[in-house]
Amino acid sequence: MKRIAILGSTGSIGQSTLSIVESYPERFAVSSLAAGRNLDAAHTQCMRWRPTVVSLANEELAADLQRRLRRDGVSGTEVVWGTEGTVRAATLPKVDFVVSAIVGVAGLQATYEAVRAGKTIGLANKEAMVAAGEILTAAAREKNVALLPIDSEHNAVHQCMRAGRRSEVRQIWLTASGGPFRTLPLSEFDKITVEQALRHPTWVMGRRITIDSATLLNKGLEIIEACRLFNLPPSAVKVTVHPQSTVHSLVEYVDGSLLAQISVTDMRLPILYALSYPERVESDLRFDMETLSDLHFEAPDFQRFPCLRLAYEAAEKGGAHAIALNAADEVAVAAFLERVIPFRGIPATIEEVLETTSETHPATIQEVLALDCEAREGAREVLSRRFAARRG
Amino acid sequence: MKRIAILGSTGSIGQSTLSIVESYPERFAVSSLAAGRNLDAAHTQCMRWRPTVVSLANEELAADLQRRLRRDGVSGTEVVWGTEGTVRAATLPKVDFVVSAIVGVAGLQATYEAVRAGKTIGLANKEAMVAAGEILTAAAREKNVALLPIDSEHNAVHQCMRAGRRSEVRQIWLTASGGPFRTLPLSEFDKITVEQALRHPTWVMGRRITIDSATLLNKGLEIIEACRLFNLPPSAVKVTVHPQSTVHSLVEYVDGSLLAQISVTDMRLPILYALSYPERVESDLRFDMETLSDLHFEAPDFQRFPCLRLAYEAAEKGGAHAIALNAADEVAVAAFLERVIPFRGIPATIEEVLETTSETHPATIQEVLALDCEAREGAREVLSRRFAARRG
Repeated sequence: MKRIAILGSTGSIGQSTLSIVESYPERFAVSSLAAGRNLDAAHTQCMRWRPTVVSLANEELAADLQRRLRRDGVSGTEVVWGTEGTVRAATLPKVDFVVSAIVGVAGLQATYEAVRAGKTIGLANKEAMVAAGEILTAAAREKNVALLPIDSEHNAVHQCMRAGRRSEVRQIWLTASGGPFRTLPLSEFDKITVEQALRHPTWVMGRRITIDSATLLNKGLEIIEACRLFNLPPSAVKVTVHPQSTVHSLVEYVDGSLLAQISVTDMRLPILYALSYPERVESDLRFDMETLSDLHFEAPDFQRFPCLRLAYEAAEKGGAHAIALNAADEVAVAAFLERVIPFRGIPATIEEVLETTSETHPATIQEVLALDCEAREGAREVLSRRFAARRG
Repeated sequence: MKRIAILGSTGSIGQSTLSIVESYPERFAVSSLAAGRNLDAAHTQCMRWRPTVVSLANEELAADLQRRLRRDGVSGTEVVWGTEGTVRAATLPKVDFVVSAIVGVAGLQATYEAVRAGKTIGLANKEAMVAAGEILTAAAREKNVALLPIDSEHNAVHQCMRAGRRSEVRQIWLTASGGPFRTLPLSEFDKITVEQALRHPTWVMGRRITIDSATLLNKGLEIIEACRLFNLPPSAVKVTVHPQSTVHSLVEYVDGSLLAQISVTDMRLPILYALSYPERVESDLRFDMETLSDLHFEAPDFQRFPCLRLAYEAAEKGGAHAIALNAADEVAVAAFLERVIPFRGIPATIEEVLETTSETHPATIQEVLALDCEAREGAREVLSRRFAARRG
């Protein structure tokens, strides 16, 4: 029986994880939940799963949940809050496996502490590896902890890497759907609307990640994540555009063999894989080979998607630049969604922030957070300087 | 240093194996060769590789080669002949690895003796596994010997199977190019000529295997081979038609993940893989991902290709039926190449032979050979009865 802490239990990955736990009650149990701000969902999850610890975003929400649970006669669930609460949920002694699916500060700190506490990590939080990957992987090595990727691309790479030794990998190929603008003429990029950018062809996801898929910045973050997870230089992490999202990624070995992973586009599959690893568990997530017809691949267009180039540059420099890439993008995407900046303002903002970022490598999570904060400041400054006219 | 015996050194697999040995002199060395009837090629190979033992088809050829080597001042190469000679080449004490690439009796006996002698086997001889797979795999289990497939499909399966445990495999998918008649209307199958059937779209191979690729009987033999190599029931060995021959096969795991292997269509790659296993060795056999554009897959048409159905039936029954499938096909293909029977006469002949085959499971190579002989007789009898008019 694996006892699981789910950081981000009310989000999409959290819910998928709970549906897996529900399907395999003999294998997995929920020990703790970190649920953020969604009080109703947190309450429902507590009633269903009776976790030992549940953490909410702040003291007020925690007190509310505490009242509700008391009213319902639920005892035995400790309600905590904030970053400290999330860390407590992640490091509970009886927890074996931590699903890290919270973005932002709380997720970062809790994931780090979970690694330090020797928990196996299922990483759905891309940001954590981009911002603090150097620190997290060093801690994981020290504690001999497995960092198992839960996003579909890195999970695919993890699977394909089992067909050889790490030293026998020549390079890896992350597949990218290409987003909604893969074939849009470059001349029309200036007219891209928020609605168009939110229409992702294959995956249904949150708003920021959907925009990041349209700019391919998401693939850029995955490049950095891959470098860190698999200890590869950026030059060994390639991107191939594959609109069907059927092949989730490929690993190329030194002998010339490529291994590819194919499956349905359902996050429950990588979650199940990570939770069960090193075993594989029977599931009904079947890919119907009879429906497989044509798979298209093409090289990514760096002119159309400058975010890819920026990501490779940030991956090469690492440290503060990787942090700045992610932070500046988050600020720029928010501004795009608020219609303050155009679509092409996203890479423009990131590029300007990266240019003024100094080459430093944080040694602690606190330093990571400080650099993240600094980059966000920088991005806001760029936005107000360059796009002030629009706002006014 | 791995010391290698190559059974079938002058054939296409043998030559590719020698080119691999040539490229990695620090890893591989040639200990013995079995060269068949091609005296000139055998002579050249002896001059280049100076094997300890070389075997030819018969005493006369062996005496010829002996004379030539003496004339050239070559000593230290023992020249032997026949099945016994091939067995000697395969079981030489210093040999570590036997490449089994001879079809027919000599290959079968020598491969079996090599397994019994504890040599690692690189299997390019599909026939051996089809006719005597039950005996060979039992001997391999007993002697704890690895049977490493050298043909591209099974080699791909072997690679993909490293991403999980054997018990976690749900089924495998062998890819088939579909041959030259994949899209030919069924109504035109009666008019297929030898020249058309010899035109294979992706691989350049021998004449029988090219015809077998056109009838898909070759894929049928591979289904049986796969059942035996990977200990799978026929229902767990599927076929998907993939005209580009870029994906060489896939393994589907119980969790819903499929692993696929992709590489250039060059036999040196599976040979290198088998020779190096469990390592992977750097090679220049690079697959250019930038050239990857569209991969097509479709379900095989059992109406157009009745050989597939016959192969599944033979796979279910095993033993004598698998032997008869292969033997009857060889006889029928020879008759087709001699323009004695039409293209559709090939499955018709096989079907009739299978119908009169009794369900027996040979326990020795001698019994295998007797059943093989019997099936060939049966096939000739069917041919003379059904197609006598044409011949005359």
